[in-house]
Amino acid sequence: MYDVIIIGGGPAGLAAAVYCLRKRLETLIIAPELGGKANYRMHLAGLEGFEHITGEEIVRKFRSQLQYLEFARIRDMVAKIEPQQTEFGENFFVVTESGNAFCANAIIVATGVEPIRLQVPDEALMFGRGLSYSAVSHAMLFWERETAVVGSGDIALRAAAELATVASRVVLIAPEGAPDTPLRRKIERLNRVTILENHCVIKIHANGYVHAITVRDPEGAEQEIAVTGVFVELGLVPNSELVTDLVELSDDGFVKVDDRCRTSRPGVFAAGDITDSFNEQVLIATGEGAKAALAAYDYLLEIDA
Amino acid sequence: MYDVIIIGGGPAGLAAAVYCLRKRLETLIIAPELGGKANYRMHLAGLEGFEHITGEEIVRKFRSQLQYLEFARIRDMVAKIEPQQTEFGENFFVVTESGNAFCANAIIVATGVEPIRLQVPDEALMFGRGLSYSAVSHAMLFWERETAVVGSGDIALRAAAELATVASRVVLIAPEGAPDTPLRRKIERLNRVTILENHCVIKIHANGYVHAITVRDPEGAEQEIAVTGVFVELGLVPNSELVTDLVELSDDGFVKVDDRCRTSRPGVFAAGDITDSFNEQVLIATGEGAKAALAAYDYLLEIDA
Repeated sequence: MYDVIIIGGGPAGLAAAVYCLRKRLETLIIAPELGGKANYRMHLAGLEGFEHITGEEIVRKFRSQLQYLEFARIRDMVAKIEPQQTEFGENFFVVTESGNAFCANAIIVATGVEPIRLQVPDEALMFGRGLSYSAVSHAMLFWERETAVVGSGDIALRAAAELATVASRVVLIAPEGAPDTPLRRKIERLNRVTILENHCVIKIHANGYVHAITVRDPEGAEQEIAVTGVFVELGLVPNSELVTDLVELSDDGFVKVDDRCRTSRPGVFAAGDITDSFNEQVLIATGEGAKAALAAYDYLLEIDA
Repeated sequence: MYDVIIIGGGPAGLAAAVYCLRKRLETLIIAPELGGKANYRMHLAGLEGFEHITGEEIVRKFRSQLQYLEFARIRDMVAKIEPQQTEFGENFFVVTESGNAFCANAIIVATGVEPIRLQVPDEALMFGRGLSYSAVSHAMLFWERETAVVGSGDIALRAAAELATVASRVVLIAPEGAPDTPLRRKIERLNRVTILENHCVIKIHANGYVHAITVRDPEGAEQEIAVTGVFVELGLVPNSELVTDLVELSDDGFVKVDDRCRTSRPGVFAAGDITDSFNEQVLIATGEGAKAALAAYDYLLEIDA
């Protein structure tokens, strides 16, 4: 019987685990790998020495703290969470894909999100070599470089705005058109930004690093555009299937939490990108993970009173 | 004219400054010192080498990043914030105690809290040498030591509960009595915890480090109790006088913020202990500081559209 089982080993899950262990809770972290998206960094020709990613360092530190604590960790995926009624409220039976089962009085869900992929050939190989799913994280590495953003929503416009402050050129490819907002009009006034509506990206060209994309216009004509960075900003899908029947989700599938990372179900907490609260940066997600750990600690203090 | 002025140099203010600068905002941080409460650590006889305070390391890193950026920093205290109406909404005129004045489109308030002091002789000298205002931060350093907690509220009970998992003995001195809650009853069941109601601490004895306290009972009789740790848990007072007329405060004077650190006034953001959201740990406060910076960035993106 554990006090807390943490599901997910990204920044939020790692921070939650470290803080649960600091609170002397019996803690288990179940994740296929530790580090999550903070394991990935952008590699660009001519930028090998660049080091500025504070969040990544924090996560590296947490990961190394946890590596000492192998007893608290299972390398596995969770297949199912089953609440069980007890005299003190509910506890939770967690079954992994490899068939193990564990029980805990509290659960912290930190399973994160997946970006929507562009679905072009070799996309996975180019990720981190010029292809990014987050302008917020990587824009600043593209100082005076030529870049493209793909996406039709507000997040794509925001990515273009952010890149416009660093890149020499930004081509915003909006397959479904870009919304007519003040931000769009602001971006259009910038010389370095071009908006291609109803175009789509059909190929990314790379030779170790991304160097161009092929774009198709509404009439089917194709052109190649030289870029060293491609930002796919099509949206994020929360990994929340596991908790669909357990806790309240937002319309787009994120776990609803209050300001202490509590979900709609007592004993179940959530932190990081999986939640409907604002995360976006690794540092924020680690703070949220710590918050969830302290909220779980409080919960445990109360239930066994 | 700055994009953002950050008031306060503790964990939240420092993280906000680093993230504002990463977003290429014209940023000024006004604070008497950088580091805030993360500058203080507990020194205990026999524990000189102890190193485990992740939050402190993060803050040290942020501070060193900012020291490169002397241009972004004023060592001063803010005396007054005056909103001014402009065609794009309000901007803010910030006057310092030394008489300088600066203007910004957005403000991030991160002025923190002050713990309520015990008001015994030499209290300031003993702080960090056995005397702490935060069991959450320092409890784990008191492994198998004798400790005292002073306070009558729920936070004092929680401090006692936390210490009970590490210390060999916890004396809870509750000047105004301790509330009759499930947590109190739980603590009372523990052999190592003694509750002294309606007692008060009149002296702390130290010789380099704290080694005893003198306690006075309701009849006026005094006794000396040997302890190496004293946790003053009388509550926290927010440093919010500066913004009393500017933004909405909670009943106890904390700045009300939403989940993106926005206050009731557009353009004014707040982060860290000054807010009514849950902080408690340096890591959480840095996450909140980053959140405030990104929220201010978003705000600026919108207002000058």
